Amino acid sequence: MPTLTERVAAGDRRALAQLISRIEREDPETQEILASLHALTGRALVVGITGAPGTGKSTLVNALAKVFRTGGPGERARTVGILAIDPSSPFSGGAILGDRIRMRDLAGDDGVFIRSMASRGCLGGLSRATGSAVRALDAAGFEIILIETVGVGQDEVDVARQAHTVVVVETPGLGDDIQALKAGVLEIADVLAVNKADLPGADSVAGSLRMMLDRNEKSGGGWQPPIVQTVAPTGKGVQELAAAIRNHRDHLLKSGEAERRERERVERDLDARLRERLFARWQSVRGNRLAEAAKKVVAREFSPEEAVRELLNDDPIAGKTG
Amino acid sequence: MPTLTERVAAGDRRALAQLISRIEREDPETQEILASLHALTGRALVVGITGAPGTGKSTLVNALAKVFRTGGPGERARTVGILAIDPSSPFSGGAILGDRIRMRDLAGDDGVFIRSMASRGCLGGLSRATGSAVRALDAAGFEIILIETVGVGQDEVDVARQAHTVVVVETPGLGDDIQALKAGVLEIADVLAVNKADLPGADSVAGSLRMMLDRNEKSGGGWQPPIVQTVAPTGKGVQELAAAIRNHRDHLLKSGEAERRERERVERDLDARLRERLFARWQSVRGNRLAEAAKKVVAREFSPEEAVRELLNDDPIAGKTG
Repeated sequence: MPTLTERVAAGDRRALAQLISRIEREDPETQEILASLHALTGRALVVGITGAPGTGKSTLVNALAKVFRTGGPGERARTVGILAIDPSSPFSGGAILGDRIRMRDLAGDDGVFIRSMASRGCLGGLSRATGSAVRALDAAGFEIILIETVGVGQDEVDVARQAHTVVVVETPGLGDDIQALKAGVLEIADVLAVNKADLPGADSVAGSLRMMLDRNEKSGGGWQPPIVQTVAPTGKGVQELAAAIRNHRDHLLKSGEAERRERERVERDLDARLRERLFARWQSVRGNRLAEAAKKVVAREFSPEEAVRELLNDDPIAGKTG
Repeated sequence: MPTLTERVAAGDRRALAQLISRIEREDPETQEILASLHALTGRALVVGITGAPGTGKSTLVNALAKVFRTGGPGERARTVGILAIDPSSPFSGGAILGDRIRMRDLAGDDGVFIRSMASRGCLGGLSRATGSAVRALDAAGFEIILIETVGVGQDEVDVARQAHTVVVVETPGLGDDIQALKAGVLEIADVLAVNKADLPGADSVAGSLRMMLDRNEKSGGGWQPPIVQTVAPTGKGVQELAAAIRNHRDHLLKSGEAERRERERVERDLDARLRERLFARWQSVRGNRLAEAAKKVVAREFSPEEAVRELLNDDPIAGKTG
């Protein structure tokens, strides 16, 4: 009887689904499994697709998946994993409704794996879980991994940092241009899609985006983010979008950016893991001193600054010597 | 010559502005200053106002500030601090454009203090800075503190957790009801405002919200979030909104929720501070071993899980005994 690790490594879909479920519920065993799978990772092209609600991201991700599945002139068909991330609901932790629609469209294709993940409320927890799910898909042999995020904000930025290439989706008619600017996600865009480009105002949105891009210079060694107009339901422009993503991948590889980004991503990941572990270790010896300290802070007996000082001085691990 | 601490404690506006600027740029001296001011805090009523872009939050916050400034039947006039938080742009760290409009409206009133803060890119950094700014305003004697956040997502949830009372602003015509549901912020609402209630569809939005609220039960001991329809520019419904906020405060005090929430908030705050400090201490001894480990992980020589294990075992502080 093969282990879960062996089954994921062999590309077994059911095993992959099980592993991602374990990642979601933070089963400690996943650590071991992902560690064993690590040598198999680093092969996939990871693409983040983000933008405000209502931009038609899900449909665009579907269309994009179909293009990658089919291949094209000089491009062979690829297997595609889709992770739909919903960081907006920190409490529910449930599934996302868009899935059923998606399933209908891409069902029956063994070269596609679709999964949605919701936030568990823990700060940074979602981007960690996303990172683990990407590793699982990568180890299972999916060649292109599309991470779709809903909304705009720090969560999306964190999730996007898991990707090699970030596609920001805009659309005409979502209100004034200021929204895009506010979103701040423009600053992380490698490729821009103006979706619903059959609506009036698509050219004007594209023009505004171009202007904004010219003002920000993204660190990344001379890459100028292309702007592609798409109509996801008809597939218009989606081949071009896929090509822009492939061009960016080529640019990353040629310029050495790919390695730099990967190293940065791993450093951030190790940082987060170390913080977690150091704190957990400390927690195991602190008893309920934190709750007691909090009570005194609430009663204004001492300030949080003093509480932290006292808690750290008392600590047998972090000690007075630190 | 009085110190900055003394000047803030005396309600000096210029000193308060200086202190918040220092908080924003994470000047280490602010720790000492806030610690000295701690005994003066815990007096203000802190209200979070959140909702999607385009709901007219800023205008509503202004109108609300004016109502609190004026008082009303059985309610004396209060001083008001406004913090406008923009978590959407992690890189820019600049000011927010809405301020000038605001200034025009509430300028010349010494009982109002307005300040905007932008994210500094650090995970959790914004909610920490917001918490510190709230303490500064509280110590300076502002009786009501309105925290306005743009957008929806984990950042807003974190910022909202700094507040005693959370007002979620919705509006007709922002698309289908699903958006509100997706936002997830409903789950943190103590009071709901349907702003722009002069637009068609306000009653229907209020009805949908009521239905959704009936499905979620917020932990909070029997508080049923009221839904208030407002038209911020004319002031319609704003008195009622202020009354709903006061009712919620009374409920918090009577039910003991106020103390429970405050204790939880302080515990989360201490937690975050301790994590920060423990990690900083560790970083000071680790040299560049993290970067070296990251390189090996990228090269698939070992997994992040193994890297963390090795880094922690090598660590003179966290040691093998942990």
